[in-house]
Amino acid sequence: MSWNKIIECVPNFSEGRDLEKIDQIVAPFRGKVGVKLLDYSNDEDHNRLVVTLVGEPEALCEAVVEAVGVAVRLIDLNQHTGQHPRMGAVDVIPFIPIKNTSMEEAIELSKKVAAKVAELFNLPVFLYEKSATAPHRENLASVRKGEFEGMAEKIKLPEWQPDFGPAERHPTAGTVAIGARMPLVAYNVNLSTDNLEIATKIAKNVRHINGGLRYVKAMGVELKERNITQVSINMTDYTRTALYRAFELVRIEARRYGVTIVGSEIIGLVPMEALIDTASYYLGLENFSMQQVLEARIME
Amino acid sequence: MSWNKIIECVPNFSEGRDLEKIDQIVAPFRGKVGVKLLDYSNDEDHNRLVVTLVGEPEALCEAVVEAVGVAVRLIDLNQHTGQHPRMGAVDVIPFIPIKNTSMEEAIELSKKVAAKVAELFNLPVFLYEKSATAPHRENLASVRKGEFEGMAEKIKLPEWQPDFGPAERHPTAGTVAIGARMPLVAYNVNLSTDNLEIATKIAKNVRHINGGLRYVKAMGVELKERNITQVSINMTDYTRTALYRAFELVRIEARRYGVTIVGSEIIGLVPMEALIDTASYYLGLENFSMQQVLEARIME
Repeated sequence: MSWNKIIECVPNFSEGRDLEKIDQIVAPFRGKVGVKLLDYSNDEDHNRLVVTLVGEPEALCEAVVEAVGVAVRLIDLNQHTGQHPRMGAVDVIPFIPIKNTSMEEAIELSKKVAAKVAELFNLPVFLYEKSATAPHRENLASVRKGEFEGMAEKIKLPEWQPDFGPAERHPTAGTVAIGARMPLVAYNVNLSTDNLEIATKIAKNVRHINGGLRYVKAMGVELKERNITQVSINMTDYTRTALYRAFELVRIEARRYGVTIVGSEIIGLVPMEALIDTASYYLGLENFSMQQVLEARIME
Repeated sequence: MSWNKIIECVPNFSEGRDLEKIDQIVAPFRGKVGVKLLDYSNDEDHNRLVVTLVGEPEALCEAVVEAVGVAVRLIDLNQHTGQHPRMGAVDVIPFIPIKNTSMEEAIELSKKVAAKVAELFNLPVFLYEKSATAPHRENLASVRKGEFEGMAEKIKLPEWQPDFGPAERHPTAGTVAIGARMPLVAYNVNLSTDNLEIATKIAKNVRHINGGLRYVKAMGVELKERNITQVSINMTDYTRTALYRAFELVRIEARRYGVTIVGSEIIGLVPMEALIDTASYYLGLENFSMQQVLEARIME
């Protein structure tokens, strides 16, 4: 790997149906030095496009700004319907530090991109998550509440002034949230019971909001076709709340209902460190360093 | 990663003392497109230099051949003493498939390098391990038996004709073994007992030669400063005999002596897949693919 620093970016665009437009939005991520398009998937019901890319900060910044320009030009939120909440042509752009980068650098990059898209496209930007300029702006759902339609008025409120760009909703492209965050790991633990009530109770006991683990969001879910239930987990910082800890705590909580774990699953991408740390726990590895992982060395 | 195929190479040179010569031998691995020097370490007692590098097959071939030329020029085995057995200025060159490469490709590369060094430097080459042309040549220790000194006569025996180069020991550089093999993982499991006899019994029960796991070599070792013992393991193919399986089998065998595992350790480099597979086992991951590992995708 010739890249020194790697940051991941997962921009969400409000176009999940028109394949020609999707192609144009994704085009700036192709064939660029210092940028690698890992994945993109559009959902017709959500009418939304989620792109996953990695790159060097500088190159990533340029490519993302270019794609935002394309989306602002192609997408009119006044014509947009879909199941997923959205407030802009580009709804949200998270930056995630992956290699040789600190959260501070990801925050810096998010602000740089924010300043550029505000200037170039007259787009109001809310900084969110780790980049947020006030606690009430950290949570994306809070920022987005009211969506495109409600944003016309909301953005005029003193507490919802944008961090960059005009204090006025873009007529067609709305507003965008840009920020830095830790990698999310979507992790589900499957239970031996078909009783959703039990799965929900276990989910509550392991999640942060109800007294569980600090970086765990969880809910009970039915898997009807398999006649089981699952604790569906979002690990919001696997470097602090380890994957194995959530897994073992689900096991411990399940015991009280005579329920066992039948398996677990990772949805989407996961940084290797999350799983290597888990292996390290179960093997009781002494003095282990990520520098011993061949691929980490190759990527250095 | 701009490289498509990655092969690892761990050449062993018979020079562990003269730092200037070591620098010259390692030089061909520096600053080359398609080759990355990961590590090199020299041992004065062994009088040996072990280099770890990765690269694309073509670039790796050229760099290794160049380094062999330097070693043949600088090292005279007639003057060489050291604790480690050796039969040549370059003692052994293993090639290990890492990414997007099959064992067949690694074997092919080993034969290409073998043909070149035989032709360019008049060096007799034995193909070993997966590249071996007969079963009695697979094991490096068997090939090397007699070392540089004994090779003068051994190489004239019909069953020890070299695969490439003259059937005569090189006057100063001896002979070299070149071949393809799986990655080795050096993995030690520490026991709660200071009784070496127990560690040795456990090692015997888990290793292949005595009826244990197919790709495990093991021996009992004393860790005197910690007052414990360890089962020191060489995992010769972690893709077939998984790390967790060796660990759990040591635990099971230890139970008969009332001994527990106090920890384990990985020595040197380990491919991420070995640990990710271990995490996958303990978490009971369903439908997991290495394609979900972010770093695997980045390196694609």
